[in-house]
Amino acid sequence: MYAQLVVEVLNYIGIVAFAVSGALKAGEKDMDLLGFVVLGFSTALAGGIMRDILLGRVPPVNITYLPYPLTAILASIVTFYLYPHLRRYRDVVLYPDAVGLGAFAAIGADVAASYCPTLAEGGCWLTVVMLSALTAAGGGVVRDVLAAEIPVVLRREIYATAAAAGGIVYLATLPFGREMAMIITILVVTAIRIVALMKGWELPHAARRGV
Amino acid sequence: MYAQLVVEVLNYIGIVAFAVSGALKAGEKDMDLLGFVVLGFSTALAGGIMRDILLGRVPPVNITYLPYPLTAILASIVTFYLYPHLRRYRDVVLYPDAVGLGAFAAIGADVAASYCPTLAEGGCWLTVVMLSALTAAGGGVVRDVLAAEIPVVLRREIYATAAAAGGIVYLATLPFGREMAMIITILVVTAIRIVALMKGWELPHAARRGV
Amino acid sequence: MYAQLVVEVLNYIGIVAFAVSGALKAGEKDMDLLGFVVLGFSTALAGGIMRDILLGRVPPVNITYLPYPLTAILASIVTFYLYPHLRRYRDVVLYPDAVGLGAFAAIGADVAASYCPTLAEGGCWLTVVMLSALTAAGGGVVRDVLAAEIPVVLRREIYATAAAAGGIVYLATLPFGREMAMIITILVVTAIRIVALMKGWELPHAARRGV
Repeated sequence: MYAQLVVEVLNYIGIVAFAVSGALKAGEKDMDLLGFVVLGFSTALAGGIMRDILLGRVPPVNITYLPYPLTAILASIVTFYLYPHLRRYRDVVLYPDAVGLGAFAAIGADVAASYCPTLAEGGCWLTVVMLSALTAAGGGVVRDVLAAEIPVVLRREIYATAAAAGGIVYLATLPFGREMAMIITILVVTAIRIVALMKGWELPHAARRGV
Repeated sequence: MYAQLVVEVLNYIGIVAFAVSGALKAGEKDMDLLGFVVLGFSTALAGGIMRDILLGRVPPVNITYLPYPLTAILASIVTFYLYPHLRRYRDVVLYPDAVGLGAFAAIGADVAASYCPTLAEGGCWLTVVMLSALTAAGGGVVRDVLAAEIPVVLRREIYATAAAAGGIVYLATLPFGREMAMIITILVVTAIRIVALMKGWELPHAARRGV
Repeated sequence: MYAQLVVEVLNYIGIVAFAVSGALKAGEKDMDLLGFVVLGFSTALAGGIMRDILLGRVPPVNITYLPYPLTAILASIVTFYLYPHLRRYRDVVLYPDAVGLGAFAAIGADVAASYCPTLAEGGCWLTVVMLSALTAAGGGVVRDVLAAEIPVVLRREIYATAAAAGGIVYLATLPFGREMAMIITILVVTAIRIVALMKGWELPHAARRGV
């Protein structure tokens, strides 16, 4: 019960942080108010929507459970009106964003794993890892595609990789119970992401190796 | 019955106008015949396909009910062969396009609302508004993404916003019956769009405010 | 039985060739290791995933049947580590890619046709043709969108068109049995693609006609 509340609070922190990051991208591209709302909404909720479509959980909770879309839309509108001020503090959002990454990865892993008995035998762990990463990083990919840019998560930084690692952490800690597994997943993913931010960690690049 | 026929005729006007708009974008990007067909098809039918996937109505009517894809494909092919002439009259398509916007918004609202009893309580109105806008404006977003451009509906003009307003109009007029609600929705959305075109209305831009 | 094995072997050739083509695009865009994996995975498996979502076959086999995603991911990682060598031999991959195009088109047609009785009457042949092309060419479209480029299949070369032709060949040869129809489909699609490559065939362009 208590753990569930913690996860839900962190989930809302993630929705707000992701929506702000989407809305800031809309501002960068000189979009109008609708562009802010669509990019904010997509960044916050498109990952979970794609996960639900892949699992057959339709209509997806992110469009039917009113508080989720309303939070994302409201955060986007506030960002629009505060944009001239907010854009200077772009980096501040990176820390709540890291918390959201952890929460989304944990929720994605938990939802995917609950479908495991119906999945093909043996395929479960990889499906959980992929859907964990998709839930957490899919929205950012949609944001960048709508901004006509190459998704930043595919080019640099430890981001989707941290979320994918979260899928493994979730499965490894599941014997301690679902709630414990989710809390540990959030802690590990958020920690990886924040350390990666502070240390400037990146995944290897093929083109730069051996040059 | 009569209202249903009117909606269906306006729906075909929308399919043709949207397909032409997609095919013209393909021509602008020097695509081949297949590019014309894919962009025309997507602009006309991808919004409804995404709506149906989100609601679990699969396979979507837009790929199984032969007359819809055939109309879109045929309109795209005709646009291809008339392209050297048609591209000079690009703006003429904006008025049937406005009619299609109204028809698609009304149909999207009607389909989404029919799923309301199965949706989470309270979330219904927002889901209807979002799916109304998605049905009408989603195809244009896919068109622009396939053309590697930032979707024009996110940058300027009253377009998806008119369709979203249509979702509200539909719900507000639903007490007068579904058919009446659809007709009024089409009239309002098409009127908003045409007045916005003539007056050059735009949504506010954050970057331009207070500068 | 024997035909099924042949199709499955050609399917794996396709997964590897498509994944390599996606990973090479990731290298061209200076993506990191995750970018190689995501583009390789998407190019190889996103077409089949979209087909399954449209047909309501969820979760899609391409994320639940472990060998498919593992093959795509492994091929992407190998491409990453061999990238400095492989990029010089880019064109070599075009021939196994043509085999994969045939296999994917045949599998897509076969899956779509098996849903025909549940599809609206008369709409079946076009649905099969479209899903055949989507299965075979949809992954390449996703690859190019993630690379922020206009999909190459919409601009030049006989590629998706060969796959769509495969849908017609499948339906025309279905009276000889499903397995025979798949084998003939693979042969015809692969042959069209290879001849098109060798002869430099392209579909017509509107902008270039009559100039």
